[in-house]
Amino acid sequence: MKLNDYLENVARDVDLLIRRHFADTPDQLSRASAHLLLAGGKRLRPSVLLLSADAIRKGSSFDLLPAALSVELTHTFTLIHDDIMDEDTERRGVPTVHTAWDEPTAILAGDVLYARAFEFLSIAPAPDQARIRAVSLLARTCAQICEGQHMDMSFEKRDDVTEPEYMEMVQKKTGSLFAASAAIGAILAGGKPTQVDALYQFGLLCGIAFQIQDDIIDITSVAERTGKDRGSDIREEKQTLIAIKAREKVLDLTPYQRALSDTEADELVALLTRSGVLDEVREIASRMVASGSKTLGILPPSPERDLLLEMGQFFIKRGH
Amino acid sequence: MKLNDYLENVARDVDLLIRRHFADTPDQLSRASAHLLLAGGKRLRPSVLLLSADAIRKGSSFDLLPAALSVELTHTFTLIHDDIMDEDTERRGVPTVHTAWDEPTAILAGDVLYARAFEFLSIAPAPDQARIRAVSLLARTCAQICEGQHMDMSFEKRDDVTEPEYMEMVQKKTGSLFAASAAIGAILAGGKPTQVDALYQFGLLCGIAFQIQDDIIDITSVAERTGKDRGSDIREEKQTLIAIKAREKVLDLTPYQRALSDTEADELVALLTRSGVLDEVREIASRMVASGSKTLGILPPSPERDLLLEMGQFFIKRGH
Repeated sequence: MKLNDYLENVARDVDLLIRRHFADTPDQLSRASAHLLLAGGKRLRPSVLLLSADAIRKGSSFDLLPAALSVELTHTFTLIHDDIMDEDTERRGVPTVHTAWDEPTAILAGDVLYARAFEFLSIAPAPDQARIRAVSLLARTCAQICEGQHMDMSFEKRDDVTEPEYMEMVQKKTGSLFAASAAIGAILAGGKPTQVDALYQFGLLCGIAFQIQDDIIDITSVAERTGKDRGSDIREEKQTLIAIKAREKVLDLTPYQRALSDTEADELVALLTRSGVLDEVREIASRMVASGSKTLGILPPSPERDLLLEMGQFFIKRGH
Repeated sequence: MKLNDYLENVARDVDLLIRRHFADTPDQLSRASAHLLLAGGKRLRPSVLLLSADAIRKGSSFDLLPAALSVELTHTFTLIHDDIMDEDTERRGVPTVHTAWDEPTAILAGDVLYARAFEFLSIAPAPDQARIRAVSLLARTCAQICEGQHMDMSFEKRDDVTEPEYMEMVQKKTGSLFAASAAIGAILAGGKPTQVDALYQFGLLCGIAFQIQDDIIDITSVAERTGKDRGSDIREEKQTLIAIKAREKVLDLTPYQRALSDTEADELVALLTRSGVLDEVREIASRMVASGSKTLGILPPSPERDLLLEMGQFFIKRGH
């Protein structure tokens, strides 16, 4: 099976499950909780969870779909709360929850999904011991995501963030949930501790690379493909790996800290390319995926393991 | 042992555990998470959990202290988020988290405690099956608390809330966590399903009565005892059971919808007493505790069961 087909299958099944559990509710809180969930998304974390389980069992793990939904619910609750904190008005082409309703409802809508994530995970069709380990891991992960978001916010007031600080932030904010998704899939599928650890490490490294690629896409991709205005990270003076590397090279990005036309953004990309910033950043992401992929050597060869490896590559090759 | 001594013992132990896990942290997010936790509180929910476990096992369950902490963490996370929604500036004699820090930090501080609640519960010293049942119940409970808070907020725009609507709101917002505390104690102590159900029911009914008593205290107790200004529910036109019963009797409370002196508040209490409102409300709370207490007949007699029954009485007799 091709990765694209696999991802589309999972997205379709996750969407069905979401509609079954979250659509057609009359009350406002449930509708607010469902709003962003129903607005689509690539469902990458559920795919990582299911593929990891598949790779352990060497077979289809679609019985773990509700557990896979739980990591998507976790992701979505963090998006709803982050959008309040960042005062963002739009996401996935729809108004953010606090914009469509109000802040109190958005806080609660996130809190409801938070609860549902643990509910779905706790009823996974797996031995009790596996389920409790999975729950425990999800709980630790949620705390890490909060720490990562807090670091990210604290970076806004600074212009001297270092690469290790950036890495710690991204590891917690983005890497940890990809890591947990892979490890939870392995745990629920009955994986050995070494296999669970390997998949955790794979998810963590690929998750960090995923975020770095996001930073690259912000500058290189035209708005029509990404759904957000090009160069917004630069304009908002965000401490991305690109900004950090540019500062290391004493590159002056201030002329670009404003709304950019596509021609101007192309100029910026040319500047970052000439100075070697983009290559260095791409190289870091690429090395992380390579290192994550290596950890999967511990798993028996299988089409699912190959799909996971392909997914790692997809994370750093995607253009939106 | 006297109830007071028991409650003080639990509060002291919970406080120690809180200080061990949440105090002395350098970073702002951890400090924000610990802020309200460290400001004290009666730790009633942990006491209900431990007493319920004791009543099942007929012995001390202090090994379940981390699990007991998890319901206090749950309670505190809801307080932090509620304070943002209600724009409250003070609680337990200290500034609310979003006042002492800011809203984004308060949202995250609540989210961190939310995660820690599940973390502590998932490591309880109990069989895996019991732990996963407890986690599942806590997750369902968190969703209910959110629904209750949402109902409560939606009541603010209305002046026609009915008694059944009020009861549903209070059951979700306050009753469900007392219910879960009792049931989780029973589950972790190895209680039979009928015992778990009885303790859930006991916690639910006493929790509702607890909230009704809170509404009464708001009017009858002087500010020095409660730490909040007397009659604030009336001033804010909150749809409490008192307000609903007063409306049923076509009592006009508008003259009292403002800051009241103690003499004026006493006048209001006299009015509510003459018209029978206070007696009716007290009677409802009292009947709930009686009905909850009856369900405990299923448990073997023990000093701990007696303490639980005493606790139910305390919920509706306390003056602050």
